[in-house]
Parts: sequence; C-alpha cells; structure tokens
Amino acid sequence: MPLVGFGLWKVNKDTCAETVFNAIKSGYRLLDGAGDYGNEKQAGEGVKKAIEAGIVKREDLFITSKLWNTFHAKEHVAALARKQLADWGLDYFDLYLVHFPIALKYVDPSHRYPPEWFGDDGKVYLQNTPMIETWQAMEQVVDDGLAKNIGLSNCQGSLILDVFRYARYEPQVLQIEHHPYLTQEPLINLCKTLGIAVTAYSSFGPQSYVELGAHKGAASLLQHNLIAEIAHHKGKSASQILLRWATQRGLAVVPKSNNHKRLLQNLECTDFDLSPEEMKAISALNINLRLNDPADIDSRMAIFA
Amino acid sequence: MPLVGFGLWKVNKDTCAETVFNAIKSGYRLLDGAGDYGNEKQAGEGVKKAIEAGIVKREDLFITSKLWNTFHAKEHVAALARKQLADWGLDYFDLYLVHFPIALKYVDPSHRYPPEWFGDDGKVYLQNTPMIETWQAMEQVVDDGLAKNIGLSNCQGSLILDVFRYARYEPQVLQIEHHPYLTQEPLINLCKTLGIAVTAYSSFGPQSYVELGAHKGAASLLQHNLIAEIAHHKGKSASQILLRWATQRGLAVVPKSNNHKRLLQNLECTDFDLSPEEMKAISALNINLRLNDPADIDSRMAIFA
Repeated sequence: MPLVGFGLWKVNKDTCAETVFNAIKSGYRLLDGAGDYGNEKQAGEGVKKAIEAGIVKREDLFITSKLWNTFHAKEHVAALARKQLADWGLDYFDLYLVHFPIALKYVDPSHRYPPEWFGDDGKVYLQNTPMIETWQAMEQVVDDGLAKNIGLSNCQGSLILDVFRYARYEPQVLQIEHHPYLTQEPLINLCKTLGIAVTAYSSFGPQSYVELGAHKGAASLLQHNLIAEIAHHKGKSASQILLRWATQRGLAVVPKSNNHKRLLQNLECTDFDLSPEEMKAISALNINLRLNDPADIDSRMAIFA
Repeated sequence: MPLVGFGLWKVNKDTCAETVFNAIKSGYRLLDGAGDYGNEKQAGEGVKKAIEAGIVKREDLFITSKLWNTFHAKEHVAALARKQLADWGLDYFDLYLVHFPIALKYVDPSHRYPPEWFGDDGKVYLQNTPMIETWQAMEQVVDDGLAKNIGLSNCQGSLILDVFRYARYEPQVLQIEHHPYLTQEPLINLCKTLGIAVTAYSSFGPQSYVELGAHKGAASLLQHNLIAEIAHHKGKSASQILLRWATQRGLAVVPKSNNHKRLLQNLECTDFDLSPEEMKAISALNINLRLNDPADIDSRMAIFA
C-alpha cells in the first residue's frame, strides 16, 4: 500500500472523474473511496480514462473502498461490494474496509443510494447485526475475489482485539481520524503490535470540517504558528508538514485537494524528514479532539466512548 | 443495587471474613468481589457470620462477583460461576460481571487459583475466545439461576455496543475505573443512553495503586488542595467528597477500607450534596489518567486503546 494516497471524501461528483484522472497523472497510485462518498462511478471514470491513456495499468493502482453501515448484514455485504465494483468499473478492490462499527437498518440501493445516516423520516435506525457477522461476510468478499485485503475503520482497541479473536482473515488496515489534535498513540501502538497498517484521515484536522460547520471551534492546524514555523524552516507548505508528521509516524495518509498545485505538493511529502524535536512538538498539540464522531448525530452511536 | 458498596479488591485474606462481617454490621449491603481478588471464601465466611448473627438475610445483600479472563470459553463460564458460588457459600450472585474483555488461556483451578495474568512461566497467553461466546455463556449463567444480573467491566463503547447487538440479556451494569483524573463522560453518557448502571472503581484514584507501585507518579487526590478545600468547607473527609462526586454523577461506588472509622465514613457519603460549581471543579481535574490498564502488562491487551 502506498504511503500517500488521494482521498475521495468530499470530492465533487461533477469534477471527480477529472480530479481522479489528474491525481493519477500526477503520480497518485492509491485512491481512497467509499460508497458513502457518493462519487464512486465518477472516480471509476477517472481511473478508466487514466488506464485508457496508458498512464497506469489496473495493477499499478491501489484502490480502497468501504462498506457502509446499512449493509452490515451477511446477505448484504458481498452484494454491496459487487455493486460498488460495478460503480467503479472494477473487478476487485485492493482494500475493502468496514466504514464504521455501526449497523444501521438496511436501505435498498434502488430506493436511495448512498443512504447515509438517516431513514426517510430523518431518524437513525440501528440494526442488531453483530460485528462478527459483518466480518465473516467481509472474509467471504475476499474468498469471492472481490477484495484482496479487508480492514476496519473508526474502531477502538477492544473491538479490534475482539475481531482478531474470531478472524479467519485478520484486518490488514485500520483507517482512523488522526491529526496533531488527535494523536491516538495507544491505538497506533496496538496496531503495530498486531501488525495492522494504519491510514490517517483528516490529516489537516479542523480544515476538513469547516465547510460542514463541524470543526468544533478548533483553531486551524494549517495556520498554526508551530506548523507555520516548521514549514518556513523546512521550505515546505503547512500541509506537507502535517502529512510528513503522519507518514514519519509510519501512517499512510489520504489527503484530497481540488487544487492541482496542492495535489502535487501533498504527494511530495516524504522527501524530507522532521527532526525528533519537531515530531515531538507537533505531537504535543494533542487535545484528543475528535471531529468525526457519530455520537454527535445520535448518542446510541458512541463508538468512541 | 445500592449506591455505596464495599469493595473486596486488596482486602487481606486473613482479615477478610472479619472485615466483611464488620462492613455488613456497619450497614453495607453491597459487596463487590471477584475470583481474581483471591478472598471469596473468606468474604463468604463474613457473610455467613452476619446472616447467622441475624444482622441480615441473604436477600438483603447485593453480592457481585466477576468472571476471570482465563474462563471465557463457553465450557468454563458456568463451571467457574459455580465454583465461585461454592467459595462464597451462596446459591446465586446478584450480579456477575465479565472482569475484562480479555480472554486468556484456561488454567484449571486445581492447578492454580486464582490464576491471575500469567502462565506458569510468567508469560501472558491469549486465547481466541470471542466476546460473543463469553456473553452467551454469561446468559446461560442467568438461565441456570446462578446470577440474577450480568454485566461488563473495563469495556469501551464500541465493544459494549457490539454486545448489545447480540445480547439476549443486555448488560445491566458496567464497572469502570473512575475518579477525577479519569472522568469518562462519553462512556457514562453512553451507559445512560443504553440504560446500563455504572459502578466506579478506584474512586480515590492513585491512592489504590500506591502499594502496588503503580500510581504512575500521579498526585494524591485524597490530599489534593481542591478536594481538601471542599472537604473542609463541607465538614466532610476527602474520601467522602470523592465518593459523593461519583454518586452525585449517578454512579455506584465500591470503596474498601480496613479502617473501621473510614468504613463508616465512606458509607455516609450520600447525606450531603456538592454544588454544581464544586462538581464541575472536581470534574475539571480530568487528565485521562488510567491506572488500571492491562496494556501496561502486555501490549496485546490494549483494551483501552
């Protein structure tokens, strides 16, 4: 799995095919998608265009997708993976993740897709599908050749450890919110112990949530004095510093950008090193600030409590 | 379940029967034990003496015990509960908890009991028993009449939510480390949402760990300026303030004391109220300091990561 990928969350449908094509042309080989992002068809078009243009072959790419919460029941997991593969125009995913350890009531894709968090009446409907059922169906996705690897996202240690107790195929990757305000050392250490690769999302912290009005009043990291100082000292951008801090911790990152220059910059975030003191100073910004918490939607979804 | 109980952790075997008898005589009705505490036989003697002395009847008492990590397999859960009941000299527990969401390799009680964390060679041996298997066996303990209620201890939100997805009998109680240095609001809120009663252990914080050399350098809460000030202002002891802070948050507490005066004091911790400002000031001491973390023993047991 490449250390730097392109994240498809909040990439506009209208520009997504073009953005993905440009990302691949610029050198991105990892694409991080999800059914919930609502742009898998368009992302697939971008991939197709890049392959047709001879820029890459399918096997040069590492394509990640995620199983949404409404499809946790055993009869829905592989069916949804097939639907998502059809949307992308692919035969297999390199990585397929359980998006959240939350099971919501099934919504038929022909009724509404992606179904997001709410029923037709705007309420959240939980469904009692245990994680063991979902994980076993994820393993079937591998057996069926629909995904090369499977993994988890947004999970805490105790649940990951439980999955390891019954897994026929252990989770290969954990994708988590991770930035200097939420450094998650214990979880990263556990993943090292278990041999799980970790992918960071929301590497820029509050920035990703401003347009959603969900940055929880946190000060920007991209404009943070400490980050700006280090960026100035290294002759790099603030975003490069934030991405390098994560990759130097051994995490993969999946930034998105609609701006071509930043898209290139983000990819070039592993050709310099931060000093141990700089690493430490950035990590010291931790305030356990979690921006993506389903408990904010409904208290019955407090998966990080 | 009474709001204030007597905790049996670290109560010496030699004095345990007498201490339990005194606790009951002093008015305690909830006894919080565990196989791992190594004193269930002696605690049972104290109970027997109190019943024989006519101080209480069995049904006046609320007796909690806990399933140790080495007994998580379905064939061991009820067998262990029966053994523990025999140790106590009881027909049933009022509450039986899964002590930790950690499954360790089985150790036959005839070989070593309580088996604690390590194998004969001093190493930790994990066992791949999923929580669903353990919980279903716990439900059988209820069906067999060995426990009136079952619950969890030392669990995070995501795992609790998973247990709720497959539970025939939902967890009634969650017992957690809880003191002003570890206030756990999100977890307590989730338990309120789910209708789980919460019991706090280690209500005095670092104090309980000093003799084990495991207080992690944290300053005493019993001697903390803020607690001392409030105690002085209220004409109460520091321990009463700490217990009242917890009970006023709606949590049950299970302090232990080998000192008769403090034992009485601890029980009298609900006959006064802290002001909202005092509650808030105490809660503001939170530094997410966890003193009882199995990850400190072995990184594969990072159940709080």
